[in-house]
Amino acid sequence: MRAAIFRNGEIIVDEMAEPTPGNGQVLVKTLACGICGSDLHARQHAHRMVEMARKTGRKPMDLTRDVVFGHEFCCEIVDYGPGTARKLKPGTRVCSLPALVTPQGIEGIGYSNDNVGGYAAAMLLSEPLLLEVPNGLAPEHAALTEPLAVGVHAVAKANISGGEVPLVIGCGPVGLAVIAALRIRGLHPIVAADYSPARRALAARLGANIVVDPKVSQPYATWAEHAQMSEAEKAARPPLQAMLPALKPAIIFECVGVPGLLQQVYEGAPRDARIVVVGVCMESDKSEPMLGIMKELNVQYVLGYTPDEFAASLRLIAEGQVDAAAMVTAQIGIDGVAKAFADLANPEAHTKIIVQPWR
Amino acid sequence: MRAAIFRNGEIIVDEMAEPTPGNGQVLVKTLACGICGSDLHARQHAHRMVEMARKTGRKPMDLTRDVVFGHEFCCEIVDYGPGTARKLKPGTRVCSLPALVTPQGIEGIGYSNDNVGGYAAAMLLSEPLLLEVPNGLAPEHAALTEPLAVGVHAVAKANISGGEVPLVIGCGPVGLAVIAALRIRGLHPIVAADYSPARRALAARLGANIVVDPKVSQPYATWAEHAQMSEAEKAARPPLQAMLPALKPAIIFECVGVPGLLQQVYEGAPRDARIVVVGVCMESDKSEPMLGIMKELNVQYVLGYTPDEFAASLRLIAEGQVDAAAMVTAQIGIDGVAKAFADLANPEAHTKIIVQPWR
Repeated sequence: MRAAIFRNGEIIVDEMAEPTPGNGQVLVKTLACGICGSDLHARQHAHRMVEMARKTGRKPMDLTRDVVFGHEFCCEIVDYGPGTARKLKPGTRVCSLPALVTPQGIEGIGYSNDNVGGYAAAMLLSEPLLLEVPNGLAPEHAALTEPLAVGVHAVAKANISGGEVPLVIGCGPVGLAVIAALRIRGLHPIVAADYSPARRALAARLGANIVVDPKVSQPYATWAEHAQMSEAEKAARPPLQAMLPALKPAIIFECVGVPGLLQQVYEGAPRDARIVVVGVCMESDKSEPMLGIMKELNVQYVLGYTPDEFAASLRLIAEGQVDAAAMVTAQIGIDGVAKAFADLANPEAHTKIIVQPWR
Repeated sequence: MRAAIFRNGEIIVDEMAEPTPGNGQVLVKTLACGICGSDLHARQHAHRMVEMARKTGRKPMDLTRDVVFGHEFCCEIVDYGPGTARKLKPGTRVCSLPALVTPQGIEGIGYSNDNVGGYAAAMLLSEPLLLEVPNGLAPEHAALTEPLAVGVHAVAKANISGGEVPLVIGCGPVGLAVIAALRIRGLHPIVAADYSPARRALAARLGANIVVDPKVSQPYATWAEHAQMSEAEKAARPPLQAMLPALKPAIIFECVGVPGLLQQVYEGAPRDARIVVVGVCMESDKSEPMLGIMKELNVQYVLGYTPDEFAASLRLIAEGQVDAAAMVTAQIGIDGVAKAFADLANPEAHTKIIVQPWR
């Protein structure tokens, strides 16, 4: 079968053997797979990723061997391996979180030498993890389940009580997923910042109420304008707090993931802000802890999602509660993957590019 | 009156005018005032402290003018200013959080050009903030209210639900206060690490159940030995979590406050750990966000305490629930302050040095 393979630091197209489903596994045809910012990071910082996997006790990629990326997929059942219940017929469209139950335990799909990811004509999934795609939902939209789940999880980890005003820094696919999840959670107003006009327009379409161009106005100042306490809230404060600015609680979602960004957030954040770090910064970073201390900031790093959050995300897209179509800016074949990695550097041109290996 | 004054980067002894109580203020004789690690930091990194105060919208010290440090004090009422209710008689021993209500608003005591701190014969306090020292409690122990409140606050901000196993990194006055507050909160076992034998002995005396010398064994490994889930807790985990190490939730208190320490905590911390940053690191710091991300760490920076936490801390000492006497390793006069700043560098020699300006 054909696949876009990560080999010697580059994405190349080559033939590889179709995998054979083992016990409890299912062979699927890959219908659609989104290209994730983490894939771009992984190509650029593969050695860092290996080092981090080692430091956190995960199985690292062997960079001398092939890897097929792709962990945001929608597939069609082709064949079952031994020990399967076969409740879903061949031809059924399914999603799954990118994990495979193997005799060695649960392993990841997408950054693995052994488990083929979604940039290939076929792959293996685990029967117990399959979620049937509700009838009629297009595979390229069902493939957005994974990135939406990242936003749903980030919002769940933010410990929202209801009165907070959120600020989303960066409106790439991660920021957009956070905005969609915040809107569903009912927070209002949602403030979002991005330098790109195209991304700001998408942010508004997905649920941001106020969009900020940081070149024109300071995101934290704009946030503060929209986070003023009501007179009743002001009056309810204990005496010693009455001299602090009368602002509602802040939840800041860092959805950029480059060095220096967190320090910028520390500088801009109001006192007692909760910061959810959703952007994946793979390099070392510098910050001034005194800013965190003097403002009593809380920083929640997040990664991934739970199986329940993943399943809920597929339902949200299928029910039309998230405008998935808005995020897809191109659909390409396997031959287009390398170029798509380059194209995604321009936020005006693309948000989510979907790989359709059968094209 | 005599005072130990921070002038041109050094602590010198000089005469200064006794302050006059304004509206709502009280003139007090300073009976005892603890030397805090922050005072040592402030002398060494005064310009950083000014920069940070500016960045966080606080009134910075003017370093060309005198400052009298000292914010951990117990005093005796001498005289009242205008507009006071005078419920407590002159001679009454009092504590107060280090803040002064002035016509310009609430200002800090201890890092201020205008409001004299506790390293002077007399100072001003605000009548509404006075707490009477319960009968018989020695001033040098009542003066420990402030550092204990730091520990009480840190534990309150840790959002403890009851099943966590805490690890305290660093057993200086801040770490010891955290240990005391954890013991009162009922957590068990409390694991604490420090390179100093004297500090480890004190940690055990204040409530640590397991003390670790990081030269001999890795604190996080020792923590894990004592944080194993029960069989019932293991069985109650969702299937996908069953492959993770079966550890109780971790709360790690960083009580050192030097660059690089937080990165060490990121490396050692188990997945989903909550980290409470109580140590005050005044320099820039470097860390790898990927470690935080892959472990979904939560970092809560803390500073100070609430008025309620402060009052509760005085009661805890007065009721004998905290072995305050154990922490006091020397009592000195104003002439001894400069030398005490130097002596505090050796953790074997000293924990808390109390200044008694009347000596």
